[in-house]
Amino acid sequence: MFDKILRTNTFEFELIERASGSWIYDVNGKKYLDCESGMWCTNLGHNHPTIVETIKEQSSKIIHRNKGFLCPITIEAAEKLLDFITDKFDKVTFLNSGSEAVEFAINFAKKITKRKNVLSLENSYLGAFGIARDLSFTSSENEEFKLEFPVCGRNECENLDRFLQKAYKVIDKHADDIACFVLEPIMVGGGVLRPCSKFIQPICDKMKEIGALVIIDEVTTGFGRTGKKFGYELFKITPDILALGKALGNGYPVSAVVTKSDLEAKLTSSELYYAQSHQLDPLGTSIAMKVIEVFESEDILEKLKPKIVELFSFLKTLSHPSIIDARSFGFIFAIEFKEYGNNKTKELILRIKDSLLLEGVMIGFSTAKNLIRFLPPLTISDEEIKFLKQKITKVLEEIKSSELDTNPIP
Amino acid sequence: MFDKILRTNTFEFELIERASGSWIYDVNGKKYLDCESGMWCTNLGHNHPTIVETIKEQSSKIIHRNKGFLCPITIEAAEKLLDFITDKFDKVTFLNSGSEAVEFAINFAKKITKRKNVLSLENSYLGAFGIARDLSFTSSENEEFKLEFPVCGRNECENLDRFLQKAYKVIDKHADDIACFVLEPIMVGGGVLRPCSKFIQPICDKMKEIGALVIIDEVTTGFGRTGKKFGYELFKITPDILALGKALGNGYPVSAVVTKSDLEAKLTSSELYYAQSHQLDPLGTSIAMKVIEVFESEDILEKLKPKIVELFSFLKTLSHPSIIDARSFGFIFAIEFKEYGNNKTKELILRIKDSLLLEGVMIGFSTAKNLIRFLPPLTISDEEIKFLKQKITKVLEEIKSSELDTNPIP
Repeated sequence: MFDKILRTNTFEFELIERASGSWIYDVNGKKYLDCESGMWCTNLGHNHPTIVETIKEQSSKIIHRNKGFLCPITIEAAEKLLDFITDKFDKVTFLNSGSEAVEFAINFAKKITKRKNVLSLENSYLGAFGIARDLSFTSSENEEFKLEFPVCGRNECENLDRFLQKAYKVIDKHADDIACFVLEPIMVGGGVLRPCSKFIQPICDKMKEIGALVIIDEVTTGFGRTGKKFGYELFKITPDILALGKALGNGYPVSAVVTKSDLEAKLTSSELYYAQSHQLDPLGTSIAMKVIEVFESEDILEKLKPKIVELFSFLKTLSHPSIIDARSFGFIFAIEFKEYGNNKTKELILRIKDSLLLEGVMIGFSTAKNLIRFLPPLTISDEEIKFLKQKITKVLEEIKSSELDTNPIP
Repeated sequence: MFDKILRTNTFEFELIERASGSWIYDVNGKKYLDCESGMWCTNLGHNHPTIVETIKEQSSKIIHRNKGFLCPITIEAAEKLLDFITDKFDKVTFLNSGSEAVEFAINFAKKITKRKNVLSLENSYLGAFGIARDLSFTSSENEEFKLEFPVCGRNECENLDRFLQKAYKVIDKHADDIACFVLEPIMVGGGVLRPCSKFIQPICDKMKEIGALVIIDEVTTGFGRTGKKFGYELFKITPDILALGKALGNGYPVSAVVTKSDLEAKLTSSELYYAQSHQLDPLGTSIAMKVIEVFESEDILEKLKPKIVELFSFLKTLSHPSIIDARSFGFIFAIEFKEYGNNKTKELILRIKDSLLLEGVMIGFSTAKNLIRFLPPLTISDEEIKFLKQKITKVLEEIKSSELDTNPIP
């Protein structure tokens, strides 16, 4: 069935054809609660009526144009985005994908500093290609520059000094040639981990000290996902560049790089030059503009608060002999497993994923990180949360019972 | 007015807000014939009614989903695309941008061959980031691997052997570590140049000989732009991978990588793994599918033939003391200038561009390559071609007269 599609990952058997709010419908009409928000994009729910209306209206006017010409909607979207961000930024460009935005930001920092090395944290996922990929946990490149860090909630902060000294050693060694530090505020693909703020702040201070820039990869953590507008607000830091994607388009491929005019001023026209077919295109920017409007007018952040508490509390009630840890940061939830009875961890995770899918719940999972993951739309309703809780409970119970059957306890 | 937009290139003063067919309308209602097809994307004309209808319909159904799930429309689009390509390919993935597609193709080739070097031609433009950027004429990286080549129409083929020997020297030196050769069939950004087929064929043969792959960057040359469905058909070669973009989405950000199952079979699941938010998303793939349908049902290629002849003939009639060369490849046209009278080449080009804009014609230009450029929609009408010819003639005449005024010939 999928034999013409290059096998870049595993595809589930179910074919889907419709989506609305928190739900996805397959070709047989069966519905699934989408607890991954697509690829962590549809923070406002699938096919949000206002966004769909914007797509229809804008695509009737103008979709695309040459890079030499701008549309008023693009300028408005830039202003809207800058107003939306609490910290003071005053320059934007709109691109297509989060990976492209991070890659652009890194190259921008390298040109400004005239330096070549880039720091990240181990476990970060920063992009699908280029330097951003090489700095990600999925690549074996640049190992020296992927800093070990203390994870919040693991008592690793007790060893804060050890982590800091190790990081300083790398930074001091390359002080003259570090262009930037790229921070993913919560490492989502890398295991749903939050780096300790007592580690992040001094590292960012150190960047200022050595003349390097601080880039925040907000592709996943932006637009309310962490309970804040942007993930970097979890730390007391002042970034130089933000890379935005995913939720900015609520499912449409638009991303952005946000920075400051004093940084732009350090580059010549030819150093600043960048050209991509759909950069600043009106269809994408009109959607970005509307996403921010909806985010504000529907008071997404305020309404999210009780939902964060509710799912967090639920996670804490889960008890299953195979659960090592259930953790959450804002509206990012993970349950980490160990092997149990006859089930190796990997099989257990795949079994839970499959069982939940049968029950009408799509979740995320990582067999490499031993976890299942939920990043539901921020607009998920109380009833849908109830449904999710019931299904998780049911599936975990079933696994417990089936294990009891096959491995009877004397 | 544009002070919030990062200055990645120069923006014209005119703000635009509507597009239809070959025309773009500014906020004052003035219309412009878009002879760059946006960023060489709208081969079917802006806001083609069938494409806009598809966007509206599909965005009401489902825009985006998790990478683990496919939509029937995506599978249909893959099949449609493979059927559309004359040569035998049987694997596709859909991405967002042409740059991403080329970058993906190069990384795919590197993984398959387990080699690291990549050949391109000097003057190629292959992408905005990553290895594809480093291989482009806009970068000073990888110089050794950017082959000099004989340009068609410049009698350089007389020195074919010299070019080939030089290329073979590089290839032989690195034979064990060349992953692929990336060919842009017509170098459009690099100066509107066609490499001699007597050079390209042996280089591609040599790739087969040393176990390297042939990748074709069809981002600009695909979908009829050269008068063929794909630019590589200008040569007698058998590519391993095609990277498609631009016209595939007719203004919407969708691109594709097309390859073969025997290559896919050489990689493990983890080597094949790639994840990007909007890869294989139904909105993009439904548009790609419809673009191909329109291309076929409107018989674009057949109807293009007389237009190619007409604009080619017109170009050959142009006589202006500053014109060095007027050349075309299919529906890609360039007029190359030298300095003239008081006008330095750069100023002359900018003056022509500005004058044509005033006259209601948007063109492309490169002050680095000393040329103005036209890649009109393939659907441009006879009347619009007439308009374009009149305006070019008028502007060139005006420049001639104004020069005559300021530099009277005795």
